Amino acid sequence: MNIPSRYLEKAVEEIGRLPGIGKKTALRLALHILDYDEHNVRALSESLIQLKEKVLRCQSCGNLSDRNLCEICENPHRDKELICVVEDIRDVMAIENTGQYRGIYHVLGGVISPMEGIGPGDLNIVSLLQKAQTGRIKELIFGLGTTMEGETTTFYLYKKLAEFDITLSSIARGIAMGDQLEYADEATLARSIANRVPYEASLKQS
Amino acid sequence: MNIPSRYLEKAVEEIGRLPGIGKKTALRLALHILDYDEHNVRALSESLIQLKEKVLRCQSCGNLSDRNLCEICENPHRDKELICVVEDIRDVMAIENTGQYRGIYHVLGGVISPMEGIGPGDLNIVSLLQKAQTGRIKELIFGLGTTMEGETTTFYLYKKLAEFDITLSSIARGIAMGDQLEYADEATLARSIANRVPYEASLKQS
Repeated sequence: MNIPSRYLEKAVEEIGRLPGIGKKTALRLALHILDYDEHNVRALSESLIQLKEKVLRCQSCGNLSDRNLCEICENPHRDKELICVVEDIRDVMAIENTGQYRGIYHVLGGVISPMEGIGPGDLNIVSLLQKAQTGRIKELIFGLGTTMEGETTTFYLYKKLAEFDITLSSIARGIAMGDQLEYADEATLARSIANRVPYEASLKQS
Repeated sequence: MNIPSRYLEKAVEEIGRLPGIGKKTALRLALHILDYDEHNVRALSESLIQLKEKVLRCQSCGNLSDRNLCEICENPHRDKELICVVEDIRDVMAIENTGQYRGIYHVLGGVISPMEGIGPGDLNIVSLLQKAQTGRIKELIFGLGTTMEGETTTFYLYKKLAEFDITLSSIARGIAMGDQLEYADEATLARSIANRVPYEASLKQS
């Protein structure tokens, strides 16, 4: 591409580094930004700097926060004896959006993936074990994905946590609400039959 | 969405203002930027400010440039008597990428669109007419899109320019290279038959 300005070229290059944004999209975005008022460009630019400078990790759970502790860990109405282990802060947001969970979280910051060179030491696991050692946790819910990496990580944590007097559970795998059985894959369907729940219990959940 | 940091929320809001970027994508991009080194965040942020502050419009053709005149208008080897009128600087880049055009450009900065409230006065038309008045232009090629707005704009310019001693032409409409006739729409196919070219001339072009 023959970009007529090196400043435009630089902006396209920087925007194009973002995941899922190709060079044509980067150019389209850069030209759009070029049409912004200067005020709006500064607001966008400044928001990125502030994002990097001001956003912290919650010292307890690893969730993002503007303070040392996140809103969830600070909230006195959340059940501190119930921890849901998730991969990523987006999982926290997804579960929070259901409005159904009253415990707290522990964000691993990834899953074990030998292919990508990510081992247990790269994840936020030590502090999870420290929490387990305090004896103040009653139940730990594994809320990781059903990918091979997610399952591996869950199993690794299970082995490490089995010695403690903590109920270890996993979020339910099964047929998604609104889905038809005929379109479900075999593994999911098999799991949903093996882990069937009493009908009256399933009524209460809906 | 329950974003746990107002700085993250602000960044998602700003990124989400960009065209074609929804809130989920904005969040994904913001979290990616959060994982950047500070150096890289500054480079991205700075490139946007520089884009707005440093990129100029060529005073002759309206193309983007780092100087008062763009590289194409400054190039002594380009034919200044041949002007291709285009909507946007992306059209200039697209035509330049063909490596086939030796004239210069005139970028309108849009097309006439009553629906969007864009009239001739909002476009870079006055300076095109001034160029026509100098008598130094031999041919003007209309290189606008085949949308209703593009065709309207071409016709408007044609009416304004017909009085001058300038050859007015339009880029060819027809079957795209590599396309099969059966998939072409009727209007394109009809136009490609009406505007047929001598076979020997078509051989020279390929």
